[in-house]
Amino acid sequence: MRDKQFLMIPGPTPVPQTALLEMGKAPMGHRSTEFSAILKEIYADLKWLFQTKNNVFIFTASGTGAMEAALSNILNPGDKVLSLVIGNFGERLAKISTTRGADVERMVVDFGKTIDINALKERLAKDVNKEIKVVTLTHSETSTGCANPIKDLLAVIKEHGALSVVDGVTSVGAMEVKPDEWGIDILISGSQKGFMIPPGLSFLMASDRAMKAYEECKYPSFYFDFAAHKKNLEKDTTPYTPAVSLICALNATLKMMKEEGLDNIYARHKRLALGLRKAIRAMGLKLFVDDDNFASYSITAILPPEGISVADIRKGLKEDFDIVVADGQNDLKGKIFRMGTLGYVCERDVIGSIGALELTLKKLGANIELGSGVKAFLESLI
Amino acid sequence: MRDKQFLMIPGPTPVPQTALLEMGKAPMGHRSTEFSAILKEIYADLKWLFQTKNNVFIFTASGTGAMEAALSNILNPGDKVLSLVIGNFGERLAKISTTRGADVERMVVDFGKTIDINALKERLAKDVNKEIKVVTLTHSETSTGCANPIKDLLAVIKEHGALSVVDGVTSVGAMEVKPDEWGIDILISGSQKGFMIPPGLSFLMASDRAMKAYEECKYPSFYFDFAAHKKNLEKDTTPYTPAVSLICALNATLKMMKEEGLDNIYARHKRLALGLRKAIRAMGLKLFVDDDNFASYSITAILPPEGISVADIRKGLKEDFDIVVADGQNDLKGKIFRMGTLGYVCERDVIGSIGALELTLKKLGANIELGSGVKAFLESLI
Repeated sequence: MRDKQFLMIPGPTPVPQTALLEMGKAPMGHRSTEFSAILKEIYADLKWLFQTKNNVFIFTASGTGAMEAALSNILNPGDKVLSLVIGNFGERLAKISTTRGADVERMVVDFGKTIDINALKERLAKDVNKEIKVVTLTHSETSTGCANPIKDLLAVIKEHGALSVVDGVTSVGAMEVKPDEWGIDILISGSQKGFMIPPGLSFLMASDRAMKAYEECKYPSFYFDFAAHKKNLEKDTTPYTPAVSLICALNATLKMMKEEGLDNIYARHKRLALGLRKAIRAMGLKLFVDDDNFASYSITAILPPEGISVADIRKGLKEDFDIVVADGQNDLKGKIFRMGTLGYVCERDVIGSIGALELTLKKLGANIELGSGVKAFLESLI
Repeated sequence: MRDKQFLMIPGPTPVPQTALLEMGKAPMGHRSTEFSAILKEIYADLKWLFQTKNNVFIFTASGTGAMEAALSNILNPGDKVLSLVIGNFGERLAKISTTRGADVERMVVDFGKTIDINALKERLAKDVNKEIKVVTLTHSETSTGCANPIKDLLAVIKEHGALSVVDGVTSVGAMEVKPDEWGIDILISGSQKGFMIPPGLSFLMASDRAMKAYEECKYPSFYFDFAAHKKNLEKDTTPYTPAVSLICALNATLKMMKEEGLDNIYARHKRLALGLRKAIRAMGLKLFVDDDNFASYSITAILPPEGISVADIRKGLKEDFDIVVADGQNDLKGKIFRMGTLGYVCERDVIGSIGALELTLKKLGANIELGSGVKAFLESLI
């Protein structure tokens, strides 16, 4: 049905009307006092959302832009980087480090698994000369639905002394992240995720240590330059013309988020994701990440029942129910499908989607008891 | 009056309703077939708008992002760059080249003037060993309202053999630029200008020679990487999540532009800018760029009458008429004000603005004959 599409992909995610109405307004001048007043509020609200005393910069760019911003401001050619890779987006941080001329070592696990703390401990213990300058890691790995135990991993990195660069693209505003307490040096995220607005903005929190590393960076990016962003942030502005419409939409959603409260937001994501996982199991399907302790609350990867293709499931959900779910990426294409519970998603959305999935699978010949998934989800809400 | 604000600044510029309605729609999935179909049309339409057979990449970034994209994909540390600087934005290309480790030489003129062709000829003739790899230059210099005679300058650069990087931020879609015919290697622009949509996207045309230079670039930007954008463009997609809402708005405005026709668009900008200049002169005010042959058709810089401050003029226009004009930048702050005729601007808009300027100046004590500017503008339309 027209205008009924529900995006369950890990971004773009659904956008509340309040934000869409802001998007549809004629943009205001980015150097006006009205716009500065909005930016001033947003810079403060982002500190709240990121749970940090550090500055949070706003880039007009995709999440990948913020990834590049992170690494291009602290790396020099030859620097040693340890990249903890649990999926495609972890690999992207490694790749970007390579393009900056860094000497990159990867610690890779089978996709669907998380980093083993002891393995990391061992590796860093071997680095007696503290040659590893930066460790990159992912919180919620969008490509697999896996969530690293980053609090514990960060404690190990902190003890070693390397700078930590954390991809929080699908975790900030959805899952608990405490950068100051846990010792994150750079934390990045993107607008079309927990922030509930369309794609086009990304965010970067930089610690004092990250700012210090920036000072020694020989060729930092001009567009993403930390100093330029810091200087302008302090004057309630941005160094270059930002995506004004998205900033105004963000102002609206940040207010909504403050109204809901951060703990409630985290609880909602956890409730919906764990409830969805219960439903999937009740339907007799398998989760790609079996252990709830390592499950992302933003995105859930599901294996199709034997003999039924991911393509057919996605097609059925889209054509009959206006629900868009994501395929797996690269090697996982056709092997998993991914359902998002990220951002502007409520119980009713998930109930509807589970029901739609049940009937879609049944129509495709799967042995599904209609209502079994919905029942399990509803029970999980009690 | 509420929602009546008219942006005469050089960006953001006014946005047509058709595009605002697209902005206000829930974003679609960026890997969907629907979105690919839109991108396919846009990539073709951008070739038309840029008047080129080359690819035009789309970046989710400000114009400065496209500037960085241009230089970070072709420069290696130590490369020699000649930057032709006629204003702040010309200087920005020089600065970005420096951050890439290039050896930058500037040819600077007094702001408000353009580059002298003979001076450029002489400088390049001296470069017998062809050490200068790249020449950066500005078409319409947004900070001064000056337009370089780029066709002639490009002929000189072409003869020398250096790569040309042209800032067309306020010229593409407003003033005639023929990259293939004139020999531009990289031409960049931004969405909140001639493209008639809000800020957040920028564009880059790369010639075959630019793509060749890219291949020898040691540390190209990952986010702005030419090869990644080329590969994805060929598959009607983008390498990373783009600002979907802006892309859909762009699809709408490109259709509007095709309907109007490129020659008509150029003629409209020329008519409005030259008409505005006649009005300014008729009011007894001075233009910062005196010679019409070197005037930008996108932005006109005007000196305030003696004894009247730019701040007061801007305040009067905004408070009494909901018209926002721009101050000068840096050293020119308070010395000029700038009125845009860029993008979605029609005769009626300019008539209203000239009238508003007349009364604002009169109220501030200037010796203005009310109606004199409007009369001159109207006469210019006959």
